[in-house]
Amino acid sequence: MTVLLDPSDVTARLTPAIAIEGVRDALRAAARGELAAPARTVVGVGDGALVFTIGAAPYGYGFRVYDRFGSTSVDDQLVALWSRDGRLTAVAHGPELGRRRTGAIGAIAIDALRPPGPLTVGIVGAGQQAWHQIWALRALRQIHEVRIFRRNAAARAEWLERFRRLVDHVAEAETAEDAAVEVDVVILATPSTQPVVDPSAVPKDALVSSLGPKDIGASELPALLVDRARMIVTDAPAQLGPSSVATDRALTPLWSLIEDPPRRREGSVFLSAGLGGTEVAVLARALDARAG
Amino acid sequence: MTVLLDPSDVTARLTPAIAIEGVRDALRAAARGELAAPARTVVGVGDGALVFTIGAAPYGYGFRVYDRFGSTSVDDQLVALWSRDGRLTAVAHGPELGRRRTGAIGAIAIDALRPPGPLTVGIVGAGQQAWHQIWALRALRQIHEVRIFRRNAAARAEWLERFRRLVDHVAEAETAEDAAVEVDVVILATPSTQPVVDPSAVPKDALVSSLGPKDIGASELPALLVDRARMIVTDAPAQLGPSSVATDRALTPLWSLIEDPPRRREGSVFLSAGLGGTEVAVLARALDARAG
Repeated sequence: MTVLLDPSDVTARLTPAIAIEGVRDALRAAARGELAAPARTVVGVGDGALVFTIGAAPYGYGFRVYDRFGSTSVDDQLVALWSRDGRLTAVAHGPELGRRRTGAIGAIAIDALRPPGPLTVGIVGAGQQAWHQIWALRALRQIHEVRIFRRNAAARAEWLERFRRLVDHVAEAETAEDAAVEVDVVILATPSTQPVVDPSAVPKDALVSSLGPKDIGASELPALLVDRARMIVTDAPAQLGPSSVATDRALTPLWSLIEDPPRRREGSVFLSAGLGGTEVAVLARALDARAG
Repeated sequence: MTVLLDPSDVTARLTPAIAIEGVRDALRAAARGELAAPARTVVGVGDGALVFTIGAAPYGYGFRVYDRFGSTSVDDQLVALWSRDGRLTAVAHGPELGRRRTGAIGAIAIDALRPPGPLTVGIVGAGQQAWHQIWALRALRQIHEVRIFRRNAAARAEWLERFRRLVDHVAEAETAEDAAVEVDVVILATPSTQPVVDPSAVPKDALVSSLGPKDIGASELPALLVDRARMIVTDAPAQLGPSSVATDRALTPLWSLIEDPPRRREGSVFLSAGLGGTEVAVLARALDARAG
């Protein structure tokens, strides 16, 4: 029988720990060379497009799809999972699986790239995406403080309240630089195609995790932070084209770090790109999970 | 609420009449210039591929997807339908929706390309695909006789029985040419990349409907039948690439014929190519239908 998970089922089942386990399943498969995850497929349809991220691994195959039609008012994404013998095991829909998956990827990256211990996190672009990073990170690390900046003051105040439901100490920053001072991790989560923070404000040992645009000359990430980074890490090398900010640097796949012996990784940059097959793996884990 | 139609729901709801109405919805939208249906998208994934046929029309948007993994033993295709405002309305799975959709396309083509009246149909390659052509055609035309050929005699005998559940008069042909003699319609439904029938055995006024491979030099369809055809008609012009057998001929879209005043159309060739958006339209009709 095929299981249909409605948005409320997804929300009830996908705890941070379950989302993280799902993403780890995909990363472990990738580390063993057992994950096929091509770059996302964008199919133009009339005045919009459908975007598919596909993955196939020992735990199954499938995809996530979302639309880029200007006309849709609802974000009702679909994730479909087949068993290796071809049975449609499950279908989930709504916006939450993708968001929580991306949060889990970011949390795993932060955990892999920062020495053990509690973290202070600065956020530039406090919104849905950044919120889900913290949502997942709580399951892996104690969070000492989150300092948030968003250009729009009204939206910033609103998100300040939402972050306070996740973490005890949330501070409002008046500038992007204020959000970055003396933190362990800087999360950039804006749609900006221009640098959003003065790199001199970012501590040299901080991890910089970028969720926004990543093309050279059209990125939220200041070039200096890429240049001075110890390592450039990504979850989805196939997703970063020849015009990416990391094009001149060796890319370290996140999956190569998750079970490594620890080494110095401070001062790295993480480029969150959306590894195909992670959504499917998270759905597989959600199926096993009891509604929380 | 999103509706999930399991294979048994699809089978119960999708009568020939419902499948035909769904395909007609898509063709009418195409005739008005309101159907966006790009050529199918094949995404390589590891040692196989996923194949998407996508369509967007006023009744909604969505796609069908099936796999080309050698490892799968089940054909558990997925069809997903969103409303124009972005809500996932329904998901159907299993092999039947696609088959019945293709049957309905063929039946509409036969009905559009043959003068009114009962039909005698010859089949070369009697199997699942050809069977669904007759399954749907019964809803539009009286069928006087079906004459079936399949190279493998054991499989032919098995399909003979199955066709007898659809039509009173089913005859077994010993050769492809025997199946084609004096019929109104010849259905070619083989996987062959070589011509499967001697064209001199095919009546000049018969409609030839081809479901198999369509590339020049790699088609089940004899070149002479294309050369002498009054019209070359297809449901999905976008699907027929530059190497198609019809490349030197003007292609008539099926959607331009369905509400036309009648004109002489005997002796045409129909190339069944799988118009994107038809599966989605058939699913929309199945939702409205009560389980029969």
